[in-house]
Amino acid sequence: MAQILECIPNFSEGQDEEKIEKIVQPFKDISGVKLLDYSADKDHNRLVVTMIGSPDALKKSVLEAMEIAVDLIDMNEHAGEHPRMGAVDVVPFTPVRGVTMEEAVELANEVAQEASEKMELPIYLYEEAATTPERKNLADIRRGEFEGFADKIQQPEWKPDYGPAELHSTAGASVIGARMPLVAFNVNLDTDDLEIANEIARKVRHSGGGLRYCKAIGIDLNERGITQVSMNMTDYTKTALYQSYEMVKFEAERYGVDVIGSELIGLLPAQALFDVAEYYLGVEDFSGDQIMENRLLEEL
Amino acid sequence: MAQILECIPNFSEGQDEEKIEKIVQPFKDISGVKLLDYSADKDHNRLVVTMIGSPDALKKSVLEAMEIAVDLIDMNEHAGEHPRMGAVDVVPFTPVRGVTMEEAVELANEVAQEASEKMELPIYLYEEAATTPERKNLADIRRGEFEGFADKIQQPEWKPDYGPAELHSTAGASVIGARMPLVAFNVNLDTDDLEIANEIARKVRHSGGGLRYCKAIGIDLNERGITQVSMNMTDYTKTALYQSYEMVKFEAERYGVDVIGSELIGLLPAQALFDVAEYYLGVEDFSGDQIMENRLLEEL
Repeated sequence: MAQILECIPNFSEGQDEEKIEKIVQPFKDISGVKLLDYSADKDHNRLVVTMIGSPDALKKSVLEAMEIAVDLIDMNEHAGEHPRMGAVDVVPFTPVRGVTMEEAVELANEVAQEASEKMELPIYLYEEAATTPERKNLADIRRGEFEGFADKIQQPEWKPDYGPAELHSTAGASVIGARMPLVAFNVNLDTDDLEIANEIARKVRHSGGGLRYCKAIGIDLNERGITQVSMNMTDYTKTALYQSYEMVKFEAERYGVDVIGSELIGLLPAQALFDVAEYYLGVEDFSGDQIMENRLLEEL
Repeated sequence: MAQILECIPNFSEGQDEEKIEKIVQPFKDISGVKLLDYSADKDHNRLVVTMIGSPDALKKSVLEAMEIAVDLIDMNEHAGEHPRMGAVDVVPFTPVRGVTMEEAVELANEVAQEASEKMELPIYLYEEAATTPERKNLADIRRGEFEGFADKIQQPEWKPDYGPAELHSTAGASVIGARMPLVAFNVNLDTDDLEIANEIARKVRHSGGGLRYCKAIGIDLNERGITQVSMNMTDYTKTALYQSYEMVKFEAERYGVDVIGSELIGLLPAQALFDVAEYYLGVEDFSGDQIMENRLLEEL
């Protein structure tokens, strides 16, 4: 089966269009990578790139783009609203198909090692790739930002996972890691009572005793006169979309409220929907190899 | 969006492995085509090849394989159990994604025209590509087979759609066309009473007053002590899988019989399952572009 991951690197350049184009060029040129989107925010002074591809092609293109960014961006002159600590601020890899989390973590390590050696860049591993619980959360690593990092990096507990224990003079430090893709899934309720939507969200989400890989809040859709349980499914392979859908439905019943539809926001892996179809049709022994398009993807 | 079709050409050679390998070689060599399967049956003396790919790549590889088959196979020496009228007996194209039926018909015409010119081969168009109702059905065209065709081809109503109105001396004549992919979908019933399965099948299928693009029969699964409504969905874009599933369920209710699962047999397009997930989750405004893998397929 073809191995596909998504990668969403964040670079600290959101204003200079020439530099932005140079940084994304490798994602356009290298075969086996499909550039899905890149958007620069001037106020954040930050570039967010979304792409998918095979492990090898992603690795090659990310390393090239990192080198270009390290070359072009001077963090001493960088200002923007978004917290940041390096020219290549953060690089998450997420498995899409045929890739285990362990393999995504391995890829993050390979990229971190090569980048640290080539660019003399200090690099931290985060989320599933984190080497200690304190490094799991990006915000914890990044606290202090570029300006405070010259000191922080010298504390033993903040020794980088790869590269020198001192800040790169212009590119700062980077964070690389692996995590599951988020699936943004909203379920609409036939009520304008936000309190009901919030009550349901509380029961469905992990923190309220609900589903392990589900975050949820109630949202008011004023224009339509309805409310919504807005969910982030943080691991669709373990907590499936149909589980959160059915759970919203049976929680809504106690309020006499109907579920009247749903929304899928942004990108998601095909498997998240195959799982839904399999559940509702009760399909026995289904294999992804039966999907014609999956066979084509083996070629990549 | 990438255009993908499936093509399942049938060649009249099921015994000589050297020849078989030569015929399938273009499907292995030409990029943009993924050879999914090829199987030769000695008794039928027939080779069935399954592949998917872009229109251009399919056209190129099918024409090359046809030329090789026309070169290698002498129908005067061919014997086998399966009815046949030519070296390249039949070539159906089926839309998988981003392709309309009109475009599949156009592709069938292009291949038929080029093949008839290059190989001096008489060619008939069938199914959706048929030019008259009498030519829709493959069995009607093929009746008489190679041995009877020297006469049949001279009747005005059996003038080929492309190529000369006489049989190719060694390769006979070919049938090329376009049709929807079949999705084989079986729904299991918690009863061993075949009569009930047959009654339900009768109500669900088109010929019994049921769904327009659904064929169905009852089947006894002796080993499991259950029965099954075995269906062929002849156009999943118009009659969706969830429709036939729900219909089996509500017909089964009158017998107090439960639906206890289902089976998807063989290959199917991803969209057939996306439609199911969309229905059961009630997803609003969903676009195939949101599926990560779909974006990768655009590259092909």
